[in-house]
Amino acid sequence: MNFLRKPLFIALCWSFFSPLFGQDAPSNDADALFVRQIYDKALTESRGYEWLRHLCTQIGGRLSGSPQAERAVAYTRQMLDTLHADSVWLQPCMVPRWERGAKPIVSMKRAKSMSFLNTVALGGSVGTADKTLKGNVIEVKTLDEVDNLGEKAKGKIIFFNRPMDPKQINTFAAYGGANDQRVFGASRAAKQGAIAVLVRSLTTRIDDFPHTGTMIYTDSLPKIPALCVSTRDAEKLSKALKEEANLEISVRSGGKMLADAPSNNVIAEWRGSEFPNEIILVGGHLDSWDLAQGAHDDGAGCVQAMDVLNLMKRLNYRPKRTIRCVLFMNEENGTAGGKKYAEIALENAQKKGEKHIFALESDAGGFTPRGFSFDGDSEIFTEQFKKLTNIAAPVLESYDLSFKKGGSGSDISPMKKQKVFLAGFRPDSQRYFDLHHTTEDTFDKINQRELELGTAAMTSLIYMIDKYGLN
Amino acid sequence: MNFLRKPLFIALCWSFFSPLFGQDAPSNDADALFVRQIYDKALTESRGYEWLRHLCTQIGGRLSGSPQAERAVAYTRQMLDTLHADSVWLQPCMVPRWERGAKPIVSMKRAKSMSFLNTVALGGSVGTADKTLKGNVIEVKTLDEVDNLGEKAKGKIIFFNRPMDPKQINTFAAYGGANDQRVFGASRAAKQGAIAVLVRSLTTRIDDFPHTGTMIYTDSLPKIPALCVSTRDAEKLSKALKEEANLEISVRSGGKMLADAPSNNVIAEWRGSEFPNEIILVGGHLDSWDLAQGAHDDGAGCVQAMDVLNLMKRLNYRPKRTIRCVLFMNEENGTAGGKKYAEIALENAQKKGEKHIFALESDAGGFTPRGFSFDGDSEIFTEQFKKLTNIAAPVLESYDLSFKKGGSGSDISPMKKQKVFLAGFRPDSQRYFDLHHTTEDTFDKINQRELELGTAAMTSLIYMIDKYGLN
Repeated sequence: MNFLRKPLFIALCWSFFSPLFGQDAPSNDADALFVRQIYDKALTESRGYEWLRHLCTQIGGRLSGSPQAERAVAYTRQMLDTLHADSVWLQPCMVPRWERGAKPIVSMKRAKSMSFLNTVALGGSVGTADKTLKGNVIEVKTLDEVDNLGEKAKGKIIFFNRPMDPKQINTFAAYGGANDQRVFGASRAAKQGAIAVLVRSLTTRIDDFPHTGTMIYTDSLPKIPALCVSTRDAEKLSKALKEEANLEISVRSGGKMLADAPSNNVIAEWRGSEFPNEIILVGGHLDSWDLAQGAHDDGAGCVQAMDVLNLMKRLNYRPKRTIRCVLFMNEENGTAGGKKYAEIALENAQKKGEKHIFALESDAGGFTPRGFSFDGDSEIFTEQFKKLTNIAAPVLESYDLSFKKGGSGSDISPMKKQKVFLAGFRPDSQRYFDLHHTTEDTFDKINQRELELGTAAMTSLIYMIDKYGLN
Repeated sequence: MNFLRKPLFIALCWSFFSPLFGQDAPSNDADALFVRQIYDKALTESRGYEWLRHLCTQIGGRLSGSPQAERAVAYTRQMLDTLHADSVWLQPCMVPRWERGAKPIVSMKRAKSMSFLNTVALGGSVGTADKTLKGNVIEVKTLDEVDNLGEKAKGKIIFFNRPMDPKQINTFAAYGGANDQRVFGASRAAKQGAIAVLVRSLTTRIDDFPHTGTMIYTDSLPKIPALCVSTRDAEKLSKALKEEANLEISVRSGGKMLADAPSNNVIAEWRGSEFPNEIILVGGHLDSWDLAQGAHDDGAGCVQAMDVLNLMKRLNYRPKRTIRCVLFMNEENGTAGGKKYAEIALENAQKKGEKHIFALESDAGGFTPRGFSFDGDSEIFTEQFKKLTNIAAPVLESYDLSFKKGGSGSDISPMKKQKVFLAGFRPDSQRYFDLHHTTEDTFDKINQRELELGTAAMTSLIYMIDKYGLN
């Protein structure tokens, strides 16, 4: 796109360029003006991008209980200290600890050839205990299919190969429609006597990156190794099985659970000037899978939440209510941090009269913002949603943000039963599952403006809720 | 993001995941159903991504008049032939031809050091004729500042260093607010006796990629070399000038205009079954700058326009009106293709009674769709916009698409005076100027789903206009 108009160029400069993508936001009242200031600051004085660079490139993958996770706790606490918030503290919680061990070796032996498959262990999986498992393969698309295999599954390797539905516009819906294979596949297969499972990676792309993620064993059943295979190699295996049903797969892989370890949620807050006991929470999760840098999942959400405090400080905004930034530990494999936070919040509600009025989580990537989704269990949820929409949507719609009912975030949803009004930040979802839980989730995949526009959107929403409340 | 809920997982799978980002589109009437089918096809049977791979990786940069541009004409014509449209043809036009020549060498000599600056010649610039120009530098922010330099500019190199405004949400508005320096800087500086200009690259990022783009000489003034410098080196030069105002820059660069060359617009159409003389145009531009592969600018727009025909074919959709795909030549440095097309359209309106009722251009990148902007000069434009919004917006809003008044596209805007209802496809603008007119605008920067969702949005809009007309 060049947009050159020779003689009329200057005259057209603004009338042509600017409106092509709509006017910038209006500024005809106090809220619109302040929100405009939030955006200006976010796009020029955010610190999140550099914080995220450090988290990703100097610390890296931050699986719960790992030394990197502890370094991330220390680093973000230190950075929050630089904001001169009223309080910064760590909230202890015990987290499960899993170690991936050696990279798996998975080979496919056919009558006339042998090749390797790109795999990684799923989070929580046992390894093969220094042995190599060998078996024929049964390809299935659903958990129900495995249940119906009966004797046929005995001694076999079950290959779950149901792709994410590319026709879903919202990729999270496609993910939700496919990840039962990853989470429950191993125990369902073990119940039928299978010796291991391979699960197609959860992405709509055909590529070479296996996507890890949590899996759960049923305690009463044998624990068998669970690995995910890249989509390209899932296609390759499926094709090979059509040609040669009794090909043999060998699996050698690591993975073991260790004892629970102590860790922390990282918290900073500014006390409200009028209603200090009313808490508005904004957060993300500090842990990540170990394969990559946890840039979009969820370093981005953490630094956005931290930047909400930074921007309010830079704008000399004095909140009426207490604004609290919480970086949760252990979202990926247990949500221990989220559960602990909710437990303490309930205690403090009873002991100190603290009340969480709102909690917002950013955990869907640092992509261009599309809006927010709201959730709650309170009898006044619908009224609150309506009130918020009436007040905030007209101001934020100018920034192409939409307000919908829907889910919020894993770490804050334990507070749903405490009747907290919950929200999830909703960035564009198209690129998330290109990277999710793979070696590709690295800092270079973050676009600074997209990240900062998300921060601006989150800060603006919190400003509106702080100013007007929800009752 | 992991979203694990152990005991309730399956039950929550859909109630939790799916609504997080809103429900998928409704399907409660015929239009919504058909649009849903368009999206399904687009996400599973588009051909654009592979066409674009070829255009980018097998042909590459396609500057007007170059052999690559002619190969792109031949290739896209051949691909359009495979769609079995009613007609596929080339529409001849003469295009300006500029050659970049040798890579520039620009060095900065200070009292105690010498270093090189990352630069490229601006499109249309003259070179230094195998000489090396040397001069002191005057940094300015605006064209007006240059006008006021008078004698001081004589023999100097003028350095235009006004950044794109990062606070604009819409990056095209920021671009529009800064590119007068690039387009007109050279002649305004030459008028004051300067010997060359360096222009800060048009991006909000600080990086090492110079951004080319067209510049225009005033015929009555001396033609001096015009180069753009990467933003990082613009910052470096600016800092150096503060420390040492009389540092010297040497410039040696290529660049020359050749004789105009014959080229073509590439056109394919399906004749309408009821109103064949009413033409609905969809297009992009086939030429690109020479530095990279022209992936987002504008290979993406071309393959999206081609895919509109492909998807309608695959859906067995028989248009009432004539749907015409036009791949314009020479948008980047002359818009010769767009002007020729408008000229012939006017002739055919008079001779054959053909009437363009609508033209849509995709030339803002292959990013995730945000909506459309509409433009027109007809006395019924506002009514048309209102009608279209009433009919199409409720269906397309489900896909997070907004309808606004605004600009359309460089190639179709010559038809504005023919009272054609015009539209620009409006993808998310945040990443465009990271790549625009640089070596970075390559195929690997294209996300297949984002590209295809754009195609789906465009096809859906055209379907609605074909079905309901605009009067």
